[in-house]
Amino acid sequence: MTDHPGDAPSYAMTAIMHGSFDDTLSATRQALTDQGFGVLTEIDMRATLNAKLDVDIAPQVILGACRPSLAYAALQAEPSIGLLLPCNVVVRATDDGTTLVQALNPDMMVSMTGNPNLVAVAADAGARLSAALDSLQPAHQTR
Amino acid sequence: MTDHPGDAPSYAMTAIMHGSFDDTLSATRQALTDQGFGVLTEIDMRATLNAKLDVDIAPQVILGACRPSLAYAALQAEPSIGLLLPCNVVVRATDDGTTLVQALNPDMMVSMTGNPNLVAVAADAGARLSAALDSLQPAHQTR
Repeated sequence: MTDHPGDAPSYAMTAIMHGSFDDTLSATRQALTDQGFGVLTEIDMRATLNAKLDVDIAPQVILGACRPSLAYAALQAEPSIGLLLPCNVVVRATDDGTTLVQALNPDMMVSMTGNPNLVAVAADAGARLSAALDSLQPAHQTR
Repeated sequence: MTDHPGDAPSYAMTAIMHGSFDDTLSATRQALTDQGFGVLTEIDMRATLNAKLDVDIAPQVILGACRPSLAYAALQAEPSIGLLLPCNVVVRATDDGTTLVQALNPDMMVSMTGNPNLVAVAADAGARLSAALDSLQPAHQTR
């Protein structure tokens, strides 16, 4: 499947960066910290798939971001919402030389569960993630 | 919000266990291994929220399960699907003394993206997760 920057999927908040993968990953970690998210998990998908399958994909790291007060509020509203926590933020290189920073749009928590009590917490998370992506000074950002 | 076993949400595959939390968590790890999933990440939500917010929730651990061949196939079909990887499996104690084991239903990958090329990989993942939950010999299971 082709992967054009213009095809930013609706379930993601996307920033398109012209910097290197490593620089963008470092900047993303800092931007998340600045918005009050801790990075609880980190998966190097390229290294994992190379080790397990001997395949070579473009650099891709999945960060599991969590702002504890938002996670707690979400769990109070929807006991099974741990299935969508932490909030994934993916940094990955693309074929056209850009690096994408993508966060799962927290509105997905609302649409998937149908729980109106998640609207406020999703809006708060979305605003913070949007601010984090914006602070990266991307070439282009979609939400 | 009350959290009745009968209210199993549609976005989750759920097994209701009568064993202790710790025994169920160990059994869940083994069941995932038996189905070819590696556990790439693990978050103790109770410990995390207690440390950060000084609140006390029931025991809850989020396991990030990944079967590399399925993750690779998913990424080939949908480049941004890392936003839903790894597959979360949550083990959590409930107020009524049961322990729930819940996996995010992989069909969510299809409904969220609208990508028909994910149908086969989601079905494979779903069958394996269902087998893992079933192997726990739950008192009740919903999908």
